[in-house]
Amino acid sequence: MTANAPPPDRIPLARIVSPRSVAVVGASDDVGKFGGRVFHYLIKHGYPGRLLPINPNRPAIRGLPAFPRLAAAPGPVDVAILAVPVAHLEAQIAEAAGAGVGACIVITAKLAEAGPDGATLQERIVGIARGAGMRLLGPNCLGIFNPVDRAMLSSSLALEADAFAPGGIGVVSQSGALMGTLVSLAHDYGARFSRCVSVGNQADLELCDFLDYLIADEATRVIALYVEGLRSPARFRALLHQARAAGKPVLVVKAGRSAAGVQAARSHTASLAGSYEAFAAVCRDAGAVLLDDWVPMVLAADALDRLPRLRAPGRGVAVMAGSGGSTAILVDQLPEAGLRLAAISDATKAALAQWLPPSHLHLPVDTGNFRDGTSEAGIGAVLRAFMADPDIGAIVVPMTTGPRMAANAALLPPLAREGDMPLLYVMGAGAVGDEARAAMRAADFPYYDRAADALAVLRALEAEAEGRARAGLPPPARPAGAGPLPAPAGLPGGMLTEAEAKRLLAAYGIPTTRERLAADADAAVRAAEAIGYPVALKGVSRAVVHKSDLGLVRLGLADAAAVRAAFAGVAAALERAAPGTMEGCLVQEMARGGIAELILGARHDPDFGPMVMVGLGGVLVELLRDVQLAPAPLSPADAEAMLRRLRLWPVLAGARGRPPADAAAAAEALVRLSWLAADLGPRLAELDVNPLVLRAGGEGGIAVDARAVLRSQANQGRETSR
Amino acid sequence: MTANAPPPDRIPLARIVSPRSVAVVGASDDVGKFGGRVFHYLIKHGYPGRLLPINPNRPAIRGLPAFPRLAAAPGPVDVAILAVPVAHLEAQIAEAAGAGVGACIVITAKLAEAGPDGATLQERIVGIARGAGMRLLGPNCLGIFNPVDRAMLSSSLALEADAFAPGGIGVVSQSGALMGTLVSLAHDYGARFSRCVSVGNQADLELCDFLDYLIADEATRVIALYVEGLRSPARFRALLHQARAAGKPVLVVKAGRSAAGVQAARSHTASLAGSYEAFAAVCRDAGAVLLDDWVPMVLAADALDRLPRLRAPGRGVAVMAGSGGSTAILVDQLPEAGLRLAAISDATKAALAQWLPPSHLHLPVDTGNFRDGTSEAGIGAVLRAFMADPDIGAIVVPMTTGPRMAANAALLPPLAREGDMPLLYVMGAGAVGDEARAAMRAADFPYYDRAADALAVLRALEAEAEGRARAGLPPPARPAGAGPLPAPAGLPGGMLTEAEAKRLLAAYGIPTTRERLAADADAAVRAAEAIGYPVALKGVSRAVVHKSDLGLVRLGLADAAAVRAAFAGVAAALERAAPGTMEGCLVQEMARGGIAELILGARHDPDFGPMVMVGLGGVLVELLRDVQLAPAPLSPADAEAMLRRLRLWPVLAGARGRPPADAAAAAEALVRLSWLAADLGPRLAELDVNPLVLRAGGEGGIAVDARAVLRSQANQGRETSR
Repeated sequence: MTANAPPPDRIPLARIVSPRSVAVVGASDDVGKFGGRVFHYLIKHGYPGRLLPINPNRPAIRGLPAFPRLAAAPGPVDVAILAVPVAHLEAQIAEAAGAGVGACIVITAKLAEAGPDGATLQERIVGIARGAGMRLLGPNCLGIFNPVDRAMLSSSLALEADAFAPGGIGVVSQSGALMGTLVSLAHDYGARFSRCVSVGNQADLELCDFLDYLIADEATRVIALYVEGLRSPARFRALLHQARAAGKPVLVVKAGRSAAGVQAARSHTASLAGSYEAFAAVCRDAGAVLLDDWVPMVLAADALDRLPRLRAPGRGVAVMAGSGGSTAILVDQLPEAGLRLAAISDATKAALAQWLPPSHLHLPVDTGNFRDGTSEAGIGAVLRAFMADPDIGAIVVPMTTGPRMAANAALLPPLAREGDMPLLYVMGAGAVGDEARAAMRAADFPYYDRAADALAVLRALEAEAEGRARAGLPPPARPAGAGPLPAPAGLPGGMLTEAEAKRLLAAYGIPTTRERLAADADAAVRAAEAIGYPVALKGVSRAVVHKSDLGLVRLGLADAAAVRAAFAGVAAALERAAPGTMEGCLVQEMARGGIAELILGARHDPDFGPMVMVGLGGVLVELLRDVQLAPAPLSPADAEAMLRRLRLWPVLAGARGRPPADAAAAAEALVRLSWLAADLGPRLAELDVNPLVLRAGGEGGIAVDARAVLRSQANQGRETSR
Repeated sequence: MTANAPPPDRIPLARIVSPRSVAVVGASDDVGKFGGRVFHYLIKHGYPGRLLPINPNRPAIRGLPAFPRLAAAPGPVDVAILAVPVAHLEAQIAEAAGAGVGACIVITAKLAEAGPDGATLQERIVGIARGAGMRLLGPNCLGIFNPVDRAMLSSSLALEADAFAPGGIGVVSQSGALMGTLVSLAHDYGARFSRCVSVGNQADLELCDFLDYLIADEATRVIALYVEGLRSPARFRALLHQARAAGKPVLVVKAGRSAAGVQAARSHTASLAGSYEAFAAVCRDAGAVLLDDWVPMVLAADALDRLPRLRAPGRGVAVMAGSGGSTAILVDQLPEAGLRLAAISDATKAALAQWLPPSHLHLPVDTGNFRDGTSEAGIGAVLRAFMADPDIGAIVVPMTTGPRMAANAALLPPLAREGDMPLLYVMGAGAVGDEARAAMRAADFPYYDRAADALAVLRALEAEAEGRARAGLPPPARPAGAGPLPAPAGLPGGMLTEAEAKRLLAAYGIPTTRERLAADADAAVRAAEAIGYPVALKGVSRAVVHKSDLGLVRLGLADAAAVRAAFAGVAAALERAAPGTMEGCLVQEMARGGIAELILGARHDPDFGPMVMVGLGGVLVELLRDVQLAPAPLSPADAEAMLRRLRLWPVLAGARGRPPADAAAAAEALVRLSWLAADLGPRLAELDVNPLVLRAGGEGGIAVDARAVLRSQANQGRETSR
């Protein structure tokens, strides 16, 4: 934006979150106006620093001396909050810059998100600010909630709630209204926050700046993000890894899973959403937990802040309650939530037998079946048995209306803490359950109103534990014979021929069909004889993407006559389809013994760099969207995990008595492809192996067809700067 | 249970729900005890009839004269409520029967659900009651809420809430705790109920009795059911059809989707869950809405009671709110909720253009982008445009924290009523949104706390509209040439051979491969020559289920020598596998030109009678569970709809440039199979056509293999009486 390097920041980011002095431009007594509301909330929530109302028409506001303009306020002003009309914004920013303000929180909207004029104005105010070493948060944001330092720098109506006690949840959100809403909801459940930042249009300070800050922030134990589009994807990815290394779980909701969501995000904060699938792959790789909705995100963040964490991923769920109906419905919901009922041990059964008749020694446990009625001792004994069972990772208690709701609820928090196991208490009733809820709040323990919420939270806890378990794995190592890339001369730009694409694969040790390029029918017969019949024959032209559709592929040619006839037929078809582009025919061995087909893919994502993809071949890939994506390069364990996450994995593993396919060969091909993708970097537009034919276990696999498009050196994708 | 016909009921069922006099056995001042609580709630909720406390130790309770025993109370006693210890239950039932009580509500538990001893006791008390013409509700139930008549006959803590105003939602639940919980939750949202009945173990009166009652009940406009297991499935099915004919939507949650859920239901109310898939098929067929969870069930029931219903199924959803973040997340969730964003018309865009800049004339509408700020006029104009748009079926408004929450909420109910379109208002914030919620309650309008709840409700409204749209279709008509069944002699019991199974198919007009049974190799060659080469040859033995696995199937035999060799090979293989069982070999035409394979199935469900099933052939059927089930017989439209509901339908319809398969032929085969299943009735254990090979559109399909197991006449399934 400016030609010279900008001056250093006047204040560090931590002082923007926790300023020693705050000026409120447009402060007034009228809480119906933005400035009045900001000022009110600062006072209401006990802001301990210097508070400077700016108002040209009033000598004092709520007992504090007011100043007609920022320049007249006694400095230094760490933060100025601006909710001025957009027409006055540029002048106010200039005034703030001139007055030595450290940073402006710009609540004003209708900037870049409103169209080209707004985008130009936004660029101008950023230029003014950065030219002065002043930082900007927003515009189109709702500021900062910082309960740790009682600095509530926001006009959000969420601050109508009383007494935000500090806690461990840090939030960065591109939507201010959503941030206020999620804080307000979770606050009612007893959740507590450290610092919450609404970044709006991210014109200057952006999501990653605050993610970085929260990772280092001592008060923050878990981080929740609402993302519309990233300004610095590579930095985001690196920060996710840093957060995991720091032991701080990161939970993310990202808009733009659907085309309509992409459009909504753009209309909202002028964000380009990027590829959701690549974003999801990067989150998984870094152990961040990606969710579809903000309610489970904030409830899961609270669970990670206040409940014991899962000891390990993959264990089962125990269910106990006093209503057979609610437990029956809940256990039916476990599989689609990606969870399973635990298989309890004999020791657990023996413990249950003290309280339950022999026919009821199984999950779910209905305390209504206790031989001598529901009792504190019985509940304690059952829960202790659960917490000692090696297959139980978590306990869900879906309570309904009944006697002693509050008293029974109050039993649970000490037991869960004693057993160091997450226990998710659900109170399904309406206001008649409020005493039970109050008991949980009094014990500083989370609770849920919906079994569905509890299961979504538990699924997030599982994902967190999976990410944590993977943190210690060694980084991917290059397998022998994977590379190096051919010299640049061997890498033409644009679409490669099948033979060229396969040479790239072969250079990385991926088995390909034996084949030769033949310029005429005689050469094709010689090639077939060298390879051995039967052979396949494919017309070669850089101008043709889908060879099969044009009749350019002939399979199972058994003798010289068949090869000659095929050559003539392919040449004629190609001449019709793309005259003058034929480069010959590829004569190829027929892959034998295949029992399954995979599609492997690689591309360079503009946000996150090299990615690889795998799915089962055939028409079902598109129909079922059963593909897995991961950032390259991969370790063998990563590649195997991708294959196992395919819904059609059982087809590879040998469903219904079929022989298992050589999944190890598939994983190795995927690893090698991932190194090819990593080495090609931005030059790789796309590369598909379709199919990789897999033989039975131990017999390997082979790339039968491949296509690739490379970018020329001059036209490479790179990290976008939005 | 009793040998003689029982005497007539002393009172009709409507008087049990709305009794003129109620005796409470064990009534006391102690609301910590069941009897005390029941008595308290009757008084608290203003029971207008005669109230008779039964207590041997007290002359009066809460100012009403008490009686030492039922027989001492002045009759007639319509209903006695018993929450006595199980050891005293039989004596109390006998006392009630002797005292001329009309019906007993038995809250006492630990009967059939607790094991064999309890089951025996339960049978005895039913015998005593029915022998006297006295009806029983329960045991192991929580009684009846009847807000219409202020008869709250229950100990449920849900009755701690104040003032249950009468409404249109009727409930029958096998779980009393769940009923109390769902009533309590929905009550807080402003939902209102007509009659709610907890049927517990259904020892005498059962779910269908009350479903029947609610269909006729004038106060009830929509019915919600929680089912663990049905006592009279055929009656249940007929009642669902009656409810639809009466214009009363039925919503159902059923336990037992998973094995663990089946076990939980059995432990809870001694219910056998039956096949969930058959239950679901019957619900769909009757237009009942089956849900996975009780929260969306009761919220959807409320929406059907208080909101305008969808005009037609299949339309899109419009989304409007003041937070771009919440709308972006919501539109991303539509597809997985089975919903879609509407495609707005040019007229709607023109209306939006009055308020929004040209770049924002699309869904979702973010009122934050209104050119002149959010306004009442703008909200009204946008909603009116939505309600006039032919592709918009419903509107979702996912609100977050913001200024004027309550005032903006209050705008919506009159607009939705004016436009006669469901509008689902979501207030995502915590207590700071309570004023907005109160505004909706004051307008007698539903609202939601979770966007996820609103989407689940909308999905249920869609299902209701789909069921309503199908109500007017004519009943299935038997196609020409479908049947009649062969004479009984032609229907052996046990497993049929492939040829026998195919003769059954052929008798119903389902095309089968031409084939002949050959006793020896010479006959096989003659058969092959009559049919035309190439042929298939299959060993025939009633003892073998999976022919392919044993090498008993040889395909593509091109000449006489191949047929002879195959016959010898098959005979040898069969002699090894099942000595002495060979009935010859089936010589069969090879099905040509197939482009897709289906599996068709038929069976007689013990609960719901004949059912047909369809799925795409191959290993994926089991893996993806991509099958559709429906009660037989089917209409052609039913059959086509089943095919279209398959996830793999696009494979049949011609995905990725493949030619479409002859789906009409598949539908016709399914219809014909459904008549075969209907005619076989309980004799049909199971019948599979696997595969039905489909050729391209218009070229038909053919049953290539079939297997069937029939029950002998003496051993037929029939409606179970549990």
